[in-house]
Amino acid sequence: MSSSRVISCKAAVAWKAGDALVIEEVQVSPPQPLEIRLKVVCTALCRSDFSAWESQAIFPRIFGHEASGIVESVGEGVTEFKEGDHVLTVFIGECMKCRHCKSGKSNVCQVLGLERRGVMHSDQQTRFSIKVKVSSIAPLEKICLLSCGVAGGLGAAWNVADISEGSTVVIFGLGTVGLAVAHGAKLRGASRIIGIDTNPEKCEKAKAFGVTEVVNSNDCNEPIQQVIRQMTDGGADYSFECIGDTEMITTALQSCCDGWGVTVTLGVPKVKPEIAAHFALFLSGKTLKGSMLGGLKPKSDLPSLVNMYINKEIMIDEFITHNLRFEEINKAFDLMREGKCLRCVIHMPK
Amino acid sequence: MSSSRVISCKAAVAWKAGDALVIEEVQVSPPQPLEIRLKVVCTALCRSDFSAWESQAIFPRIFGHEASGIVESVGEGVTEFKEGDHVLTVFIGECMKCRHCKSGKSNVCQVLGLERRGVMHSDQQTRFSIKVKVSSIAPLEKICLLSCGVAGGLGAAWNVADISEGSTVVIFGLGTVGLAVAHGAKLRGASRIIGIDTNPEKCEKAKAFGVTEVVNSNDCNEPIQQVIRQMTDGGADYSFECIGDTEMITTALQSCCDGWGVTVTLGVPKVKPEIAAHFALFLSGKTLKGSMLGGLKPKSDLPSLVNMYINKEIMIDEFITHNLRFEEINKAFDLMREGKCLRCVIHMPK
Repeated sequence: MSSSRVISCKAAVAWKAGDALVIEEVQVSPPQPLEIRLKVVCTALCRSDFSAWESQAIFPRIFGHEASGIVESVGEGVTEFKEGDHVLTVFIGECMKCRHCKSGKSNVCQVLGLERRGVMHSDQQTRFSIKVKVSSIAPLEKICLLSCGVAGGLGAAWNVADISEGSTVVIFGLGTVGLAVAHGAKLRGASRIIGIDTNPEKCEKAKAFGVTEVVNSNDCNEPIQQVIRQMTDGGADYSFECIGDTEMITTALQSCCDGWGVTVTLGVPKVKPEIAAHFALFLSGKTLKGSMLGGLKPKSDLPSLVNMYINKEIMIDEFITHNLRFEEINKAFDLMREGKCLRCVIHMPK
Repeated sequence: MSSSRVISCKAAVAWKAGDALVIEEVQVSPPQPLEIRLKVVCTALCRSDFSAWESQAIFPRIFGHEASGIVESVGEGVTEFKEGDHVLTVFIGECMKCRHCKSGKSNVCQVLGLERRGVMHSDQQTRFSIKVKVSSIAPLEKICLLSCGVAGGLGAAWNVADISEGSTVVIFGLGTVGLAVAHGAKLRGASRIIGIDTNPEKCEKAKAFGVTEVVNSNDCNEPIQQVIRQMTDGGADYSFECIGDTEMITTALQSCCDGWGVTVTLGVPKVKPEIAAHFALFLSGKTLKGSMLGGLKPKSDLPSLVNMYINKEIMIDEFITHNLRFEEINKAFDLMREGKCLRCVIHMPK
């Protein structure tokens, strides 16, 4: 067992905001009680990695929360995992015991909630985060997308908005998360799925995921919310903000209908964290909901999504536009900056 | 039939913001096609009348939307009402035909929506607004409260929040609307109903309506949202903003729990119409919903509330702290300014 010793491995380290990542030899401490250490097989680059790299203050930093891997060793007291298990990394935990874990209405575990600042729960020191065991027959180079982006979008459509058959859906932002919402909406039988983006390449790709109409907001002479209200006779049943722009949350609210319109915000805004909306938007019966990992409980729900993928009930492969070697990691950041990718999967050295 | 002629009657006219109302002789045009003219029997003073009188720009103006009355005459083509019918005035319509009226999920009629600026639907001229026929055995001097405040509060608890048994509820503002929410929450079996106000007299009255604990936010050393989170182990299941203060909507969001917390805003803010809230409040799974007349459809739902009152299933009398003669109307505005009343019912001359 390697669990009692420090190991050395490669990591792409961000030393400074916006600077190219540098592949370094790093030491990883042994897993402490109730922790596991894993060998990452693949990581997809998520927009929130990109935003943190561009703007946030915690450096040096190792990115890659949308990952899959194999358990390398386990700490004392771990009974759920053993060496060789296939796992997904997830950014929220599930203790199975607190009132949120016991409730069917929440995935916000009060004990192992949102992992912040990259430190471990037990001692607030840096090592790594909670893992979810999944079927070992699922390809790790695909299912890493279920650690964050694709699962978050599907869950937002299914759990948070609870899209009903025949409904009209508007999606702001046709990146991986927005297209995963579209995919989820299509599987629920939405009759119209309108996608909004400013990037013609993204608009092009969207139809494969269930988007029925695409609007490039740069081509509109009127504000986009007005265009959507005209297209939908007063507003969509559901609107989704998948950009990470609080201004767009207001636009999404204005784009859904009075009475029963639901707006779901999934993005993590990097510029202005305050949502501003005129009270009258709500007075007419609209609802604004947030979504963290699409309301999915990581341990309880993610393994089922992996099985749905194995059974070809959900798509993952189509979201992967690039496969890159670990040494090419900075190319993934470039592609994301240029809007040229959906998900870039980074394959670790064998 | 008087329907073909102009009639003269008394009205309390607001000539200028904040100036005492003046009782004047006014002329009321005959009802046009599909309109009815009614003799108001009682009006309760609503906070939104008060706010409009204090601050809004449309003068001269006749207030009194929380009214009950008797049909005096009907216009051409009216088949649902006849002279002598008992009615409630309501500020939204219900055409029964548009997609909102046909849906069980909305009370925002697209044809006869929110009456704005006091003009009629047909010709945008001033006369009066849509009415709802109710049981003639119900006392008009009580049920006028169902035209707006009490119905709005009950509906917000039942339809908009859909409060579940055993849940914890926090209510900001213990005026008529807030106490009607409390009453609705109690009838749904909420186990804790925490009321917040700064007025000790309102705090005192609140228990009669189902409030189980009262917090005077002026007596707290910590921000009220922190006090509530401590009292409720992380936040209430539902929070209601019943003040008309957009800052308080943010506080209400902060006072409900992660995962499934629902905040309902009922107030009409008179100062700052923009709601501002940090996106992270939503990221953790909270929901913000608006409420207009508690999601109640005026024609379909209000008559049942009148019957519930007749059957003693809901309280109305307890909300009436003052009965005033029409000539004393300015006293009602004084009492509301001073926070000395719940509802003042103004009785018209016989």
